[in-house]
Amino acid sequence: ITELDFSLEKIEKGGYEHFMLKEIFEQPDVMHDVMRGRVRTEEGRVVLGGIEDYLDRLKQARRIVICACGTSWHAGLIGEYLIEDFARIPVEVDYASEFRYRNPIIGPDDVVIVISQSGETADTLAALRAAKEKGAMVMGICNVVGSTIARETMCGIYTHAGPEVGVASTKAFTAQVIVLYMLALALSKGRTISHDEMRLSLKELSKVPEHAAKILELDSQIQQIADDYKDARNFLYLGRGYNFPVALEGALKLKEISYIHAEGYPAAEMKHGPIALIDEDMPVVVIATRDSSYQKILSNIEEVRSRKGRVIAIASEGDTEVARLAEHVIYIPQASAQIMPLLTVIPLQLLSYHIATLRGCNVDRPRNLAKSVTVE
Amino acid sequence: ITELDFSLEKIEKGGYEHFMLKEIFEQPDVMHDVMRGRVRTEEGRVVLGGIEDYLDRLKQARRIVICACGTSWHAGLIGEYLIEDFARIPVEVDYASEFRYRNPIIGPDDVVIVISQSGETADTLAALRAAKEKGAMVMGICNVVGSTIARETMCGIYTHAGPEVGVASTKAFTAQVIVLYMLALALSKGRTISHDEMRLSLKELSKVPEHAAKILELDSQIQQIADDYKDARNFLYLGRGYNFPVALEGALKLKEISYIHAEGYPAAEMKHGPIALIDEDMPVVVIATRDSSYQKILSNIEEVRSRKGRVIAIASEGDTEVARLAEHVIYIPQASAQIMPLLTVIPLQLLSYHIATLRGCNVDRPRNLAKSVTVE
Repeated sequence: ITELDFSLEKIEKGGYEHFMLKEIFEQPDVMHDVMRGRVRTEEGRVVLGGIEDYLDRLKQARRIVICACGTSWHAGLIGEYLIEDFARIPVEVDYASEFRYRNPIIGPDDVVIVISQSGETADTLAALRAAKEKGAMVMGICNVVGSTIARETMCGIYTHAGPEVGVASTKAFTAQVIVLYMLALALSKGRTISHDEMRLSLKELSKVPEHAAKILELDSQIQQIADDYKDARNFLYLGRGYNFPVALEGALKLKEISYIHAEGYPAAEMKHGPIALIDEDMPVVVIATRDSSYQKILSNIEEVRSRKGRVIAIASEGDTEVARLAEHVIYIPQASAQIMPLLTVIPLQLLSYHIATLRGCNVDRPRNLAKSVTVE
Repeated sequence: ITELDFSLEKIEKGGYEHFMLKEIFEQPDVMHDVMRGRVRTEEGRVVLGGIEDYLDRLKQARRIVICACGTSWHAGLIGEYLIEDFARIPVEVDYASEFRYRNPIIGPDDVVIVISQSGETADTLAALRAAKEKGAMVMGICNVVGSTIARETMCGIYTHAGPEVGVASTKAFTAQVIVLYMLALALSKGRTISHDEMRLSLKELSKVPEHAAKILELDSQIQQIADDYKDARNFLYLGRGYNFPVALEGALKLKEISYIHAEGYPAAEMKHGPIALIDEDMPVVVIATRDSSYQKILSNIEEVRSRKGRVIAIASEGDTEVARLAEHVIYIPQASAQIMPLLTVIPLQLLSYHIATLRGCNVDRPRNLAKSVTVE
């Protein structure tokens, strides 16, 4: 019986060593699934059945508050940038646990979006209920169809990422970000962006699965880098703008499955404290793709290097400057800033995965953690 | 000549070993200075000369955005809670570096408050200028009279904390929080709180210097605890609500001067990742004062203990439950939740100071750090 179970599990893992790795590699397919029937590039529009009847009210929101926990909270931070950028509606992101215990300023003109893979996260559910009590319009983004959050929200968007087994969320995260990107565009239509911009933004999005597949080919390079750093006890992750939440997410992944104390920071904050930590024992992952703050992040890398910190950089294909400064560079395809988080997070998922397996950790079931935190 | 310099410095330090320690101990006096002439408990009002002419416009803000870096950003987070709680105006807090590179949604109906001890922090100054360009009303909170931020804002409040020499900010932080408390009350007057609530809230505030002096008497207890943990390589700091930003600030202090990798978290987020890190080598500082989430934080402590984590708790005087669960308890006077950050931060300042000095670190001039970050 044990043998049969084992084989079954092996089949479920589709030939991968762990569910987490399988789920990382599923991402190009999942990305297609999330967008299927929803992204209509040629028509220049997004079709989101679950919120269609509420779209006008959503567009008129005085303010959008996103509540979530953990990885979903990181997706929410990216959502803030996307919605503010495209749809020009002010967004605030709150930890669900903090939101519910405050007396939040929420009323009928506000929209509260809750994000949870399982749709059962206790604090997120409590935040949703608090928002409803205050008369806000509540919308959900979750993966599990028919979950409590899906049932208790007025409208919502499913991520369609398929079951996620690994405790450390990967494909559910990228699916959430795609949903938020689509939502931001749906909120922009006819208001804040032109038809051409819409088509261009959708075109950018539809290229993401292909880009993701290309990044996954770097697996063995990333495994080699992981081998170099597997004994590190601490890690710092830096990013700016759209890549700042990715730095947080990359650090969380490493924490969760390798038990290395990794911390994410907006790169510019480094000088206000964390730089004191940097020496040869503190590797620093810097997301340094080409965007408006590229020059600034190059000087962040220089600062780390001058304090003997070892730098692993995520850079844009074709970039030559980063390679002069960083010890390791992982190149990813060029894309717009709004698309970047969907790409830059993938090497960080792989890096965490390989460091954890090289350390002999049980990546699918890390110690102390549950897949869904359904208790408070 | 060297000897004379030395004596001069010694005199400047007022008999303390380091400027940082002197500045920690100055806090009760500084708190009096910040409030002097401004807090009129009997009259039930706050007089803030620097914003008087702008008070009506401030009260009508559609939204307040606070921009800052480092320790001032933590004060801003507390400000968010205070202003939302008392004045019921929606507040968002942004890293100055992130705000300036986004295309923030800010207009003439919004108020942007910038906070900086020196009044010269480069990113904060740039955020201020970006906000002005967008037509927002800009207000400053800084310590150095006549600084660039003081000159370029339309109105503002000085913290009057006196010169701060230690690179790790202590008294400037508590002064900023008092200013934000006074501001929140000034914005509430005649709108969201009654005359009686106002008087009560001012009375609570006016007791803070006395409470702070009492907490400083715990110095030798805290030094003993520090001796126990001086060799730790990692630290976690947990708090909820008003004490969540204090957890971030406590962790930053330890990072800055002891080079120990300390990280702050909202306590409820622990289960979404950081709990995987916890074992006997990861001490956890938990701020567990009596407030609405007290029971929740007790279970957080239990979770840490059951994973063999060592807990240093900050608890309210008279509490007996925390002592059963935590290895060390530092008791502080009872006060309202809104006042708490001003009290709970003090033991964390002392803990960082003593750990750093026991490790032989140069606490007044930690490696890699400058007092004011005037470059980007």
